[in-house]
Amino acid sequence: MLQKPRGTRDFLPDEMEARRAVEWRLREVARRWGYREVCTPEFEDLELFTMRSGEGIINEMYVFEDKGGRKLALRPEITAAVIRMYINEAKVAPKPLRWCYYADCFRYERPQKGRYRQFWQFGVELIGADSAIADAEVIMLASDMLDTTGVRYELKVGHLSFVKTLLKDVEPETQRKIRQQLDKKDFEGLNVTLEGMNRPELAESLKTLVATQDLAEAFDIAGAIPERERIEQTIGYLDAAGIRYSLNLGIARGLDYYTGIVFEGFADNLGAENQILGGGVYRLAHLFGGDDVASCGFAIGFDRVMVSLGETARTKDTVAAIVCTPETRMRALEVARAFRSAGIRTEMDLMDRGFSQQLSHAAKSADFAVIIGQREAASGEVMLKDLRTGEQKTVTLDAAVAGVVASGSRG
Amino acid sequence: MLQKPRGTRDFLPDEMEARRAVEWRLREVARRWGYREVCTPEFEDLELFTMRSGEGIINEMYVFEDKGGRKLALRPEITAAVIRMYINEAKVAPKPLRWCYYADCFRYERPQKGRYRQFWQFGVELIGADSAIADAEVIMLASDMLDTTGVRYELKVGHLSFVKTLLKDVEPETQRKIRQQLDKKDFEGLNVTLEGMNRPELAESLKTLVATQDLAEAFDIAGAIPERERIEQTIGYLDAAGIRYSLNLGIARGLDYYTGIVFEGFADNLGAENQILGGGVYRLAHLFGGDDVASCGFAIGFDRVMVSLGETARTKDTVAAIVCTPETRMRALEVARAFRSAGIRTEMDLMDRGFSQQLSHAAKSADFAVIIGQREAASGEVMLKDLRTGEQKTVTLDAAVAGVVASGSRG
Repeated sequence: MLQKPRGTRDFLPDEMEARRAVEWRLREVARRWGYREVCTPEFEDLELFTMRSGEGIINEMYVFEDKGGRKLALRPEITAAVIRMYINEAKVAPKPLRWCYYADCFRYERPQKGRYRQFWQFGVELIGADSAIADAEVIMLASDMLDTTGVRYELKVGHLSFVKTLLKDVEPETQRKIRQQLDKKDFEGLNVTLEGMNRPELAESLKTLVATQDLAEAFDIAGAIPERERIEQTIGYLDAAGIRYSLNLGIARGLDYYTGIVFEGFADNLGAENQILGGGVYRLAHLFGGDDVASCGFAIGFDRVMVSLGETARTKDTVAAIVCTPETRMRALEVARAFRSAGIRTEMDLMDRGFSQQLSHAAKSADFAVIIGQREAASGEVMLKDLRTGEQKTVTLDAAVAGVVASGSRG
Repeated sequence: MLQKPRGTRDFLPDEMEARRAVEWRLREVARRWGYREVCTPEFEDLELFTMRSGEGIINEMYVFEDKGGRKLALRPEITAAVIRMYINEAKVAPKPLRWCYYADCFRYERPQKGRYRQFWQFGVELIGADSAIADAEVIMLASDMLDTTGVRYELKVGHLSFVKTLLKDVEPETQRKIRQQLDKKDFEGLNVTLEGMNRPELAESLKTLVATQDLAEAFDIAGAIPERERIEQTIGYLDAAGIRYSLNLGIARGLDYYTGIVFEGFADNLGAENQILGGGVYRLAHLFGGDDVASCGFAIGFDRVMVSLGETARTKDTVAAIVCTPETRMRALEVARAFRSAGIRTEMDLMDRGFSQQLSHAAKSADFAVIIGQREAASGEVMLKDLRTGEQKTVTLDAAVAGVVASGSRG
């Protein structure tokens, strides 16, 4: 028997409806902030991803050849593709561009809990704005989007300049190592690195930086940071808007193209794989032959948000089952049409079941039975049975439709 | 400069919003009929598609290898995957299953007008119902779904048994050839085939079959058809429901697994590539190791529907631009939040533009300017300027929000 490929998933209707509902809420929040959806191809030239992330990423990608011998890859993430699209299609459009996307990505690695080979991201890219209010807008939007999903989370905001300034006289390879250790809060490893460097005084400064919630203290520790005013303004906007976040000036993000503010979101109720959002200020377009445009964006790990929401994300549709006889079926088709026109999910028997079989099937699958026997077909009325209470009454078609609609809006 | 891969597309916001709106309307109609969305992986074991369609299809697919050496393919269509999912996940669920999907597919062929290497389908599969009313339901749903898009189309309904019965003593290879010629209305080719067979009397019968709108005449021509009663019932339901269709008993569909009713939709305003829907009754599950379950489904060629709709599908969002000074920006953030909470797409300047520059940018990009100078910030009011009429007035925040909301619902 054929199975789905390893590391992929099938989604049944209950789960899919919950996903579409959350996806739609995310899109709606983005729309209100002026972020409009774009869509790029499922695969891109391999080069797009290796240019940005190095050749090492090839092992984590699905790579195949075009008929023309060009190497293509299923996209491992969306930002590079969106920036490629910006350069191709929208370089001369008035700035800033506010774009969002909802798309699946592919990661060719050993499947494990909470990590799939096909996974979905809802992301946002602000292209061409380079200001404190721009940075703040993207973080506020991240916060609004996570809020709308209903997930419980912590948002952490940092900036790469603090650690970079503190380590400015450390050689690049060691800087990189230290930033990774800070990012993972691997203080033991950090101590080993710093001891090896014979710079034990750095340890205290770095640990304080990672822990502090006091921006003034962070500036004291790190020394002169050119972006100080912009950082203070950005944080000022977040505070004025009442955004719930904590500082974490140790955030390094995995990728090298971030240049300023960085931020991450973590779900409260997930285990080790609890990061549900990541983003920051970056420059990428010049790598792909475009202008050196400032950008800021983030991606939400949609699948993890859904895991975090669990059963709470499930929606419940009101279902009406039309119950009829072979003789009243033509009338039943009209009745079904009236219910559907009013937005009700309406099902008819397709199995040539008898009258009582239809009723017992409806009791399992529907909230209301709309019964059309000979008498109802003749009178133009229907018998509406509320399957949750057992109550039933013969009413006009309009009254039946109105009753079911009203019940749905109560539920 | 990097480009998108050959045969693929980037979608900018105007187009993407139109697509999402149509997609959402299709999903809503499916929901009302009880068809709930499922989702299968972007790629499947290659075998799933070769089992169904033969090895020839490999040349039209993107094929690559798993780390485990398994051959995978980007899906060229969705039905096989949905049936594979049915066997894996839902074989024992109560019948019938009403499923729908919206998904992208891949075709590895020479790109041409209206044919892309990545394309989208909205489809429906009814699994486990084997009756006239089941067949009719799927056709009625197809009609409702095409109607909701706003596309102008012709729906053609046929049944494989007529031609099959007429040709029952013709050898299978020639039958196949004749069916293809009928499907393409290639009457010249058909004449050649029939002359070669020395069966000229068949030509007249076949041509009448393809043209007739009279079911009784079709039965007379074809002779005894075992499914006659079911066909008459199905057509009876379509007529009773007022479905707009024409008969075309020459429809063969491309694929061999159809077994009964078949139907196709064609857009009025497209050229040679005008088919926007195709479907029918089929049996497929037994090929994949499942039960021999009766199914009926169709897929809508989403991209062609969008081409057919053209500019008429474009939506227009009401946009409010917040105009402020550096001193009133904190208040502007509050005002923006109020507009967004009311569902208005609301944009703020992120470019540190001056007051008058903000106003002239708003004039190009928005419907309303919400102006917050020193006086408005102090009084808690805003100046609302309707950029379409030039009219402006100072009002409370609530009144401004209500005014913009009302304007949107008029538009």
